[in-house]
Amino acid sequence: MPHNLQLLLLLAIIVAAAKLAGALANRIGQPSVFGEILVGLILGPTVLNVLGFPLFQPHEVAGHAAGPTMLGLVKALAEVGVVLLMFIAGMETNLDEMRRVGKVAFWSATGGVVFPLIGGALVSQAFGLPLFWEGIFIGTILTATSVSISAQTLIELNALRSKEGSTILGAAVIDDVQGIILLSIVVAFARATGDVQFTDVALVVVKMLVYFGAAIFLGRYFTAIARWADGLGVSQGLLAVVLAVAFLYSVAAEAGGGVAAITGSYLAGVLFSVTPYKERIDHAIHPLTYSMLVPVFFISIGLSANGRELGEHVWFTVALVAVAIVTKAVGCGVLARASGFNGQESVRVGVGMISRGEVGLIVAGYGLANGIIGQDVFSASVVMVLITTMITPPLLRVTFPKPAGPHVDAIVEETIGGPPEEARNSH
Amino acid sequence: MPHNLQLLLLLAIIVAAAKLAGALANRIGQPSVFGEILVGLILGPTVLNVLGFPLFQPHEVAGHAAGPTMLGLVKALAEVGVVLLMFIAGMETNLDEMRRVGKVAFWSATGGVVFPLIGGALVSQAFGLPLFWEGIFIGTILTATSVSISAQTLIELNALRSKEGSTILGAAVIDDVQGIILLSIVVAFARATGDVQFTDVALVVVKMLVYFGAAIFLGRYFTAIARWADGLGVSQGLLAVVLAVAFLYSVAAEAGGGVAAITGSYLAGVLFSVTPYKERIDHAIHPLTYSMLVPVFFISIGLSANGRELGEHVWFTVALVAVAIVTKAVGCGVLARASGFNGQESVRVGVGMISRGEVGLIVAGYGLANGIIGQDVFSASVVMVLITTMITPPLLRVTFPKPAGPHVDAIVEETIGGPPEEARNSH
Repeated sequence: MPHNLQLLLLLAIIVAAAKLAGALANRIGQPSVFGEILVGLILGPTVLNVLGFPLFQPHEVAGHAAGPTMLGLVKALAEVGVVLLMFIAGMETNLDEMRRVGKVAFWSATGGVVFPLIGGALVSQAFGLPLFWEGIFIGTILTATSVSISAQTLIELNALRSKEGSTILGAAVIDDVQGIILLSIVVAFARATGDVQFTDVALVVVKMLVYFGAAIFLGRYFTAIARWADGLGVSQGLLAVVLAVAFLYSVAAEAGGGVAAITGSYLAGVLFSVTPYKERIDHAIHPLTYSMLVPVFFISIGLSANGRELGEHVWFTVALVAVAIVTKAVGCGVLARASGFNGQESVRVGVGMISRGEVGLIVAGYGLANGIIGQDVFSASVVMVLITTMITPPLLRVTFPKPAGPHVDAIVEETIGGPPEEARNSH
Repeated sequence: MPHNLQLLLLLAIIVAAAKLAGALANRIGQPSVFGEILVGLILGPTVLNVLGFPLFQPHEVAGHAAGPTMLGLVKALAEVGVVLLMFIAGMETNLDEMRRVGKVAFWSATGGVVFPLIGGALVSQAFGLPLFWEGIFIGTILTATSVSISAQTLIELNALRSKEGSTILGAAVIDDVQGIILLSIVVAFARATGDVQFTDVALVVVKMLVYFGAAIFLGRYFTAIARWADGLGVSQGLLAVVLAVAFLYSVAAEAGGGVAAITGSYLAGVLFSVTPYKERIDHAIHPLTYSMLVPVFFISIGLSANGRELGEHVWFTVALVAVAIVTKAVGCGVLARASGFNGQESVRVGVGMISRGEVGLIVAGYGLANGIIGQDVFSASVVMVLITTMITPPLLRVTFPKPAGPHVDAIVEETIGGPPEEARNSH
């Protein structure tokens, strides 16, 4: 089959499988991301190994070089997808709400970063992995939480606007920010392997500061840039220019600032979220992102990970999952209690923070791509994300009162500010 | 620079350059597609050869195979873009309007197919190219018109709903349909090169009939499929399933029916256009398509074509352009006159049909990719599309009365049914 048809067929399979699996996951009360990752594992080398089918092998045409491999294309599209996903995460970051939930959310988030970081590093060391930097990187993977999964579950429970719901959402956002900054620092130091000189470290810090300073300074012009793009009068001019800026922020973040590319698009998203164009960008970027590119990202995780290789590391995986659940719930819950919440409220906040999701996978995938962690740790992280993603919704359902009232859509629209279908399902 | 950053940087350049060039083209009264193709030529080997920069060379990582080349990635994304573009062209096909404009539009369109087909074939033969099938294929390239460019120009002239405007739009749509069917037949026969047996030809026709029969029959279920996809309750479920269907129709068209892949997505678009979900699909697919994938397609034309190779074929190019303009205007105008229009009306219709656009480039690119035409003919076709695209708007402005009235946006919204910004600029 010619190369162009192979790609179209593969995209059709990926998109259809992702959405079907997401819907089935929703039916059994799980976030759709759980189903999408699971079906990716099924399509990947763990079960079916679809990319190994003769149908998707490189097609030789006389006189033409074979095109890119399907896995190469999928990974390239997934890269665009994950950058857009983090841009949307940045757009979702509600700076006002973060200020309102205040002290409790901040300390709870901090507890949810410090406890898993230490727990992950210690359990890795216990299994013989070097503390610097693999162990600390594994701890960093465990610090991730997911605004999207927490928010979607809370919406389904009609609890997004409750005291605990606001705290969870605020803490999840703060945790995301802390986690990404932590990741940037860990990546920056992990790259300067061997004998780290003081000047090397200073240079890393200076580059980061210059990047963040310049990126935030240029953010002042985002409203002007968006107004100018919108006034170009070309089709999708606003979205196109926003994409170009997000991509450039990603490239500059990694090539210039030494931090992760996804940090750059996240930052671009935060900076666009405070412009008057937020709603319109949000509305346009969802079809682009969630119809094809993000499903390709979720499926690509399963296409890259081989679950069959887990056999020999089963105890490490079990320990990692247990540490991930306990350290996050205890870290968040204890610090929420210490900041003034009562017992029940603290339990709800702790439970609501357990779920990892795309952020954990992004971090793990980043570590794999840059050689900081190995395939075994990546696979264990996929299992960790799957299980924490899976248990959070039922646990939240147990700790929160049963959802009442038929106005979920209206609440969603008021809360998220988007159309019901998108708001309910894409976060 | 790592592979993922190369891709993000290239996409940022492509998207920004395409939209800027489109806006500049609009400023000087040209359709944005003209500017997008032109800037692609500038970025490509004709002028700058951006992909030849060291920045975009394959990045070798120790222990990892180099990823796909940037040109391979751009062409793969362009393939997705052109399939989506033809899907949108199908969605835009207004079957009711095609019936209303009736006889005149049909005969005008037919004249605009037959005259350029014969003219293109004869001029190719005069320059020593074989009539079967290269000459006939070149004639087929000349039959293309562009709904998008005609429609956008008429909107700018406030003449979309006039008698001639409706005729041009209807004839452009009929021309598109006739041209794509003609292309499918020509491609089917051109592939069965050498001694064509009766059974071979019969098989080609039978495969086409089976494909079209099955595709149209399955179209009856598109409303049910869309309703089901929408009810999945996952983010962008409707758009994702529509994409999967469009991709599968493309793959089945070429791998099963023997016709062009773009015929499949065009047909899927037509079939979805008569479902109650048309507006919602239209609204969701525009950000996906016009923000990134279609700009990549337009730019990829220039990245693939080398205008420097035109020098030795300059007279062929001049002849092809002249034949393209004259045969289309005369063919459409004469048959409009013969069908009952007066002289001025016939001139307006003939002039309005001159512009080619993405359809001509799709056909030419298809012929190049499948070895039916050579690089020289492809490059001449790019010049032909550029020039016909360029002269149509000013010629229309001369033949039509000056636009009056400030309600362009309102008219667009009523006419096209989409939001003003998208409707005015993306067609």
